[in-house]
Amino acid sequence: MKALLVDARSPLSTPPEPLFRDRMTTPLADPVDGLAEIVRQVRGERSLQRVVLSIPGLVDQANGVVIRSTNIPSLDGCHLGERLGGLLGVPVDVVNDGHAAAVAEATWGAGAGSDDSFVLALGTGIAGAHVVDGTVVPGAHGSAGELGHITVEPDGALCSCGRRGCLETIIGAPALRTAWNSAGGEGGPRSLLAAFGAGEARAQGIVFHAASALAEALLTLCALVDPGRIVVGGGLAQAPHALVTLAEGLVGERATFHRVPPIVPATLGGWAGANGCVLLGLQAG
Amino acid sequence: MKALLVDARSPLSTPPEPLFRDRMTTPLADPVDGLAEIVRQVRGERSLQRVVLSIPGLVDQANGVVIRSTNIPSLDGCHLGERLGGLLGVPVDVVNDGHAAAVAEATWGAGAGSDDSFVLALGTGIAGAHVVDGTVVPGAHGSAGELGHITVEPDGALCSCGRRGCLETIIGAPALRTAWNSAGGEGGPRSLLAAFGAGEARAQGIVFHAASALAEALLTLCALVDPGRIVVGGGLAQAPHALVTLAEGLVGERATFHRVPPIVPATLGGWAGANGCVLLGLQAG
Repeated sequence: MKALLVDARSPLSTPPEPLFRDRMTTPLADPVDGLAEIVRQVRGERSLQRVVLSIPGLVDQANGVVIRSTNIPSLDGCHLGERLGGLLGVPVDVVNDGHAAAVAEATWGAGAGSDDSFVLALGTGIAGAHVVDGTVVPGAHGSAGELGHITVEPDGALCSCGRRGCLETIIGAPALRTAWNSAGGEGGPRSLLAAFGAGEARAQGIVFHAASALAEALLTLCALVDPGRIVVGGGLAQAPHALVTLAEGLVGERATFHRVPPIVPATLGGWAGANGCVLLGLQAG
Repeated sequence: MKALLVDARSPLSTPPEPLFRDRMTTPLADPVDGLAEIVRQVRGERSLQRVVLSIPGLVDQANGVVIRSTNIPSLDGCHLGERLGGLLGVPVDVVNDGHAAAVAEATWGAGAGSDDSFVLALGTGIAGAHVVDGTVVPGAHGSAGELGHITVEPDGALCSCGRRGCLETIIGAPALRTAWNSAGGEGGPRSLLAAFGAGEARAQGIVFHAASALAEALLTLCALVDPGRIVVGGGLAQAPHALVTLAEGLVGERATFHRVPPIVPATLGGWAGANGCVLLGLQAG
């Protein structure tokens, strides 16, 4: 877990200099009490105005409820905002971590200067969020932006979602690991991308296949959503950005009527989610 | 061309009773003067407050400019709002006809009661527009909603857009006609759908293929855009709604994590576009 503390009077224009910034151990046993204790430690003698928590999983942001947590099952169904707020005596907002990271990237990261960015994170899964004017476009049921589950290969591999050939079955970290190991490579996606960068022939086909699948999904995104910028982040999109660069080139080659926006790597790295919490907290005042 | 005249004091809650409603001949030779003459005929002795024109093609709505007209090439590049407004002495708005129809369907048609509808029109091409709170979500370059150009069959038939296997290459009216004629059927898509309704075996496969492709595109739409309702209109979606009913069933069967909204046939028919102009005119005051 990452913790960031900033001055509540910080301007919204740039990421504020943190008063505290460190990794903390997530309290798995008694998460609500544990989180309260962590906040008290971070706060120290300072007076606290607001807490914003980003959670991997499905969140009812309006009511501060964790519907389904990816990593802390004991939080499932927890009215976290209300309970933690009661313990701390300040408002507590609960947001999806992908949404928090997307808002930060769109506003302070690679999307800065555009009021319309689609931000995706390539990792085990593929999270996406369309951020317009600093706010995630949620969809009617809060589930828009699932770029990872666009069908790219209709008869492709079985996806965790139960369908076949989703983008995630080709470019998700487990899929890349499997393809790389099947080709005789050792290690996971980072090792694959390093081998690609070093010009290893057996890495080329796998990385081109992944970039091609990503390009197809991005063309669909352009046709349906027409974003002003596409920001690609997550563990698989880090420097030297081979996947992003390849996908950008393929989208440009394959586009016909599409209005293709700039496709750029994310810049905030692993702290995007925590920065998004800061931004949402400052927006809330 | 269709013309509708309504009382400018009509409420926005329901489609107003028209003072005039009829088809007119589009003036191809001198379109701007011709349109002005038609408006004068329709107006008669009444005082006119505003004209809203919907045009098939690419429109710069903010500036009233026809960028590329599908049917009247002499309008390409025309500052139609300014020129027609100058002739008539009233404000003239120029909108895309698909957008106008979508706004009307979402507000007064099959989308009534929901503040979030994706409206598509199945015809020669496939137009789509996401209407939220009565307004089309335009995308960063005004080109969102191109459901017809989602890739459904990666190595499929060549599309008018230059790519392969777009939804339009399977369910567009020319594609259905070709498939039907190749199977020995006579006539076009309406004849195909009539034969399907009558239980003709050779029509079954073609219509199921089309409905299946539509279902795949709608699942992608649900994953990326998450609309609150899907309204299917256009010539190929008319009663008895075989395509809409089949596609709705297939989306329900194939959905996994998707939040599937109601999928319903449009109700305003061929007058949706004209009704959308009325709605936009009343909104503008």
